[in-house]
Amino acid sequence: VGTTENAARTRAAVRVEPDWEVTEGDLASIALGAAILGTGGGGNPYLGTLRARQALRAGMRFLIVDPDSLPDDVVLAAAGGIGAPVASYEKIERGDEEILAVKALEAHLGTRVDAVAPLEVGGGNSMRALVTGGLLGLPILDGDGMGRAFPELSMITYLIYGGPVSPAALVDEHGRCAVLTGIDDPRSLESLARTITVEMGAHAGLAMCVMDGAHARTSCVPRTLSLAVRLGRAVTAARDEGSDAVAAAFGAVGGRRLFQGKIVDVRRQIVGGFSRGSVAIEGLDGDIGRRVTVDFQNENLIARDKAGVLAMVPDLISLVDRDTAEPVTTEALRYGFRVDLLVIPASPQLTTQRALEFVGPRAFGYDFDWVPAFNALSPE
Amino acid sequence: VGTTENAARTRAAVRVEPDWEVTEGDLASIALGAAILGTGGGGNPYLGTLRARQALRAGMRFLIVDPDSLPDDVVLAAAGGIGAPVASYEKIERGDEEILAVKALEAHLGTRVDAVAPLEVGGGNSMRALVTGGLLGLPILDGDGMGRAFPELSMITYLIYGGPVSPAALVDEHGRCAVLTGIDDPRSLESLARTITVEMGAHAGLAMCVMDGAHARTSCVPRTLSLAVRLGRAVTAARDEGSDAVAAAFGAVGGRRLFQGKIVDVRRQIVGGFSRGSVAIEGLDGDIGRRVTVDFQNENLIARDKAGVLAMVPDLISLVDRDTAEPVTTEALRYGFRVDLLVIPASPQLTTQRALEFVGPRAFGYDFDWVPAFNALSPE
Repeated sequence: VGTTENAARTRAAVRVEPDWEVTEGDLASIALGAAILGTGGGGNPYLGTLRARQALRAGMRFLIVDPDSLPDDVVLAAAGGIGAPVASYEKIERGDEEILAVKALEAHLGTRVDAVAPLEVGGGNSMRALVTGGLLGLPILDGDGMGRAFPELSMITYLIYGGPVSPAALVDEHGRCAVLTGIDDPRSLESLARTITVEMGAHAGLAMCVMDGAHARTSCVPRTLSLAVRLGRAVTAARDEGSDAVAAAFGAVGGRRLFQGKIVDVRRQIVGGFSRGSVAIEGLDGDIGRRVTVDFQNENLIARDKAGVLAMVPDLISLVDRDTAEPVTTEALRYGFRVDLLVIPASPQLTTQRALEFVGPRAFGYDFDWVPAFNALSPE
Repeated sequence: VGTTENAARTRAAVRVEPDWEVTEGDLASIALGAAILGTGGGGNPYLGTLRARQALRAGMRFLIVDPDSLPDDVVLAAAGGIGAPVASYEKIERGDEEILAVKALEAHLGTRVDAVAPLEVGGGNSMRALVTGGLLGLPILDGDGMGRAFPELSMITYLIYGGPVSPAALVDEHGRCAVLTGIDDPRSLESLARTITVEMGAHAGLAMCVMDGAHARTSCVPRTLSLAVRLGRAVTAARDEGSDAVAAAFGAVGGRRLFQGKIVDVRRQIVGGFSRGSVAIEGLDGDIGRRVTVDFQNENLIARDKAGVLAMVPDLISLVDRDTAEPVTTEALRYGFRVDLLVIPASPQLTTQRALEFVGPRAFGYDFDWVPAFNALSPE
């Protein structure tokens, strides 16, 4: 499974035919949809969109390939940003960190990468994958390694299902690059890459998991980029009509609004390069009298009220502004925001027994097993 | 100056003729001499000697080349251990960390390394350089990048005099490897490599500064391996006759005993991967009534009494046991030890204006300029 270092040295480049293309008009929808799917993390949609628009206007193209169109022997590299989301707001980036990281892996392996596989779906990282593909002149996979955003590299489906843990490359805004090799445990990669990221200023460009098309097709969470476009378009069309219309649009992708309220407390700290904390929300409208708290580690993990857990990782928990339907990332949570709590069931790729070892509640330190969203709830 | 990444790709291997060879009988002398020259750091002489003896008995050879015998176009890599000395006592190593690090640089640069350049002189790192050369089948330079031990990579003469700051490779006992590129500031390399070392368990094997023979010859502190042999032999011969005889043997290499006393206080903490602190020594015999303190950061930096500074970095300050003449490394300092304070003037390579920027007292946070050892003292 995946492309090993030695096998990669002898192969020729494989041509990948794109299935569709992202236009400038799609960017706002992708930014919105991906940020909602980013469950509070996944990076900054605003800066990501600016970078993507700039790339398109400079003549780049974002050519998208469906997982089922990937030839078995094509070579992909997963790429995206790594770090505490808040740091990516405050650091001035080169803008080509991920490109340099992919090139470092190409040089190390002595192979050419044919396509870019998004690391995660999220406002920042979906755009980073597009820009990386655009700048490298490579197609981008319609799918990703998380089907949402997650805080740790050990939570990437490309790795969970057996892809190569190393080499991986990190690049910072000074062009400093670390190529990591000799690692076969995803958690060991996570801890070493995280430490380097913190030293690099808490944010870096990452390329990893150089794999063949067969592995990408079977291990990715498929078609999350087209899902982001559809979700973004539906929410954009609904948001002028208010929170109930957005909830209905959300329902069209299998999601549900679980709670409406006002943020009354936010606890947050940066620990080991992560943004960790919890937010308390007091009910509004139909939810007056209830109180829900959401725990997060870069991304939202667990939503609960006094009766118990309402939704839990890996299911997708997003908070969106009740007035604008803009998702509120965990670093932007603030007292007084009026938010809707939206939940989408996780992709089946994330809920196998194997995947839950890495992305279930216990992987985040909780002492209970995953229960699918909506299972314990009465239908609306 | 030095070999750049691109130039290295096109060269053929160069044969280096060794000038002399280290035998098993030399190891104890090198361990003792190098540990004294290691000024309280430089790693564990005991474990280093065991590794070197094991390598010799397995048929390896430690072939030594004088700096003046290096062809201009030979390619050398500096190699040694990095980390808090105390960690190298407690971690079980692979034993080939530096070998893997050199190989990672060879693979990255697409060149063959012809000889090993010791990173620093010290009980551990002199032995590591020998073992690295022995296992790789390469000769070892009689000289090093510090002329003593220092706590930071920015203090290596190969870099101070313009050698390439990157690529550098770090390898831990699990075989995890980080190849660092795109760095041209020695202090930036130091901070990134130090962070990675801490994550790797506070000790790692390091290879760096791939350079040509012309650069190694002009930038190294020359003939420190042969100096370690001579010093070790002289001290071994003198130590049965007591502290005064050892002091006389020490004088034969230009050193001097500055103080005799008993350790009465040790303050030490591990900060950012460094062992930092100070030791207070009450005078004995001819020094009764005086009190000297020595500050250290892995290595001894400053010795002073109430009248002022007696000796300062980069001059070599070593503490040796008064009974056995064994050097006491900073992590072994303990209340009640009776020690002699020995000082050797630093090599001229360390006292140029350029070098003092990196290894003088101000580089360690002290607010005074370097004054050569013995200058302020009346002759004995």
